[in-house]
This record gives sequence, C-alpha cells and structure tokens, in this order.
Amino acid sequence: MKKKAVFYHAGCPVCISAEQTVVSALDRNQFDVEVVHLGSDKHRLSGAEKAGVKSVPALVLDGQAFHINFGAHLSDLK
Amino acid sequence: MKKKAVFYHAGCPVCISAEQTVVSALDRNQFDVEVVHLGSDKHRLSGAEKAGVKSVPALVLDGQAFHINFGAHLSDLK
Repeated sequence: MKKKAVFYHAGCPVCISAEQTVVSALDRNQFDVEVVHLGSDKHRLSGAEKAGVKSVPALVLDGQAFHINFGAHLSDLK
Repeated sequence: MKKKAVFYHAGCPVCISAEQTVVSALDRNQFDVEVVHLGSDKHRLSGAEKAGVKSVPALVLDGQAFHINFGAHLSDLK
C-alpha cells in the first residue's frame, strides 16, 4: 500500500514554485501525493496541525512533517 | 540524463532522521541522490553556498535549494 504525502501551502508564488519542484521529485511508486491550499481549504487546518505542521510550505511524508523554508530570492519578487 | 539531488546535513540525529525520510522519498528514476555531511566534508561548503544553502538540513533539487526545518520534537531528545 502506498504511503501518503501531503504538501501544504497557502498560495504564495514561492510556495507554489517549491510545491512543483518537491512534489515532482517524490517517488509516486511509494507515495500518493496530495496538495492542499490551507488558505482556501480551511477545514484541512486541524489535520495539518495534528500532523505537526507549524508553517507553510510543509511536506508531510507518511505522517512526518517537514517545514520547507525555501525563502524568496529578491529576484523571485521582481 | 538524471538530475542531481544533494542532501546536506551536519550529523545531528534530527538531520539524519530527516535525511532518511526525505532521501528515500525521492524518485531515483529522476534523481541521482548524494548525501553530504558538511561537518566532515568541509570542502563541500563552497558548493553548498553557491547552490544557495544557508542552513542544514537542506536539499538541493536540480540546483534549487530547499531548507528543511523539521525541528526537533522533545520526544526525539529523550
């Protein structure tokens, strides 16, 4: 059975860029991947909190939360 | 040709736990994965800096740096 990977973000362009790179790098043979926009899917907040998510973007791999602080290059904002 | 994924860490138990989960989740059909201990492989520091790594643990996917701030649960330290 596949494990679950959930990528949580809040819609900012930097998060979405991180999402695309990280989500596409995951092994789909191991993981069912879901992307959740916590800004619009507010009913998913409690589940994210239970998984240990403290900030976005975050990736929960098989129940373990990783906070991805890519940060924004100034060039991304130009 | 495969892209390059490099996981940089500095040997702390929390980083190593993150490493194992994240590295094993990557799609090996897309990425050649390398793990670098910046505490012992100090000659790799300049390359990490050039890739945009500011802190460890960090994952560089195809040249893009992601800082993974898993943080430490108190339970991990008991």
